[in-house]
Amino acid sequence: MEKVNLAEKLSHFSEHWSPRVVGELNGQHVKVAKLRGDFVWHHHEDADELFLVLTGRLRIQLRDRDIVLEPGEFFIVPRGVEHKPLAETEAHVLLFEPAGTLNTGNVANERTVHRLERI
Amino acid sequence: MEKVNLAEKLSHFSEHWSPRVVGELNGQHVKVAKLRGDFVWHHHEDADELFLVLTGRLRIQLRDRDIVLEPGEFFIVPRGVEHKPLAETEAHVLLFEPAGTLNTGNVANERTVHRLERI
Repeated sequence: MEKVNLAEKLSHFSEHWSPRVVGELNGQHVKVAKLRGDFVWHHHEDADELFLVLTGRLRIQLRDRDIVLEPGEFFIVPRGVEHKPLAETEAHVLLFEPAGTLNTGNVANERTVHRLERI
Repeated sequence: MEKVNLAEKLSHFSEHWSPRVVGELNGQHVKVAKLRGDFVWHHHEDADELFLVLTGRLRIQLRDRDIVLEPGEFFIVPRGVEHKPLAETEAHVLLFEPAGTLNTGNVANERTVHRLERI
């Protein structure tokens, strides 16, 4: 039961595409991540996923259009919807999703983070 | 499936202690609220509640101590824990909690918002 300072948590790591858990409530995880470059197309079968941009800019590619998020903006990717995050320069984001959600969803590859670190 | 700009959503209303729903995922609501002054002591029997400060400063009084949140900081009040939010000047916050959570928890009074507005 301590408060969490998002910038302080983000100062603890530098890897991209490697979310850290910073909170848990009602079976959901609050995560922070640093994103740069592009990720893989994937979807989450049973999980809606929220991306809130803290710094930088995040493009979320959907099959039919792109969503571009600036700081203070969020987007919820509904379960089952294919998406590919893309950050041309480094973006810091907050994620809300069910505990147990894999970062690469239905895809398992070298980008998949199986063991989430809590910071 | 549209992005949400938090500042834009907050520009739509001015009432204090009257959260608006701005997103829903996995049975959880994302809300924004403007807070000023103090609220009532209450708890939520079955819901953990996250407060993330966007602007201003929020004090969350617990029975044994206070948590003071600045912008970019959040605190999760676990279910069952009595708390009283207090904002000496106006604070804008993002809330994350299960859909159906009443703002005054176990207390029903004139501050209770029974019908949440979605904006």
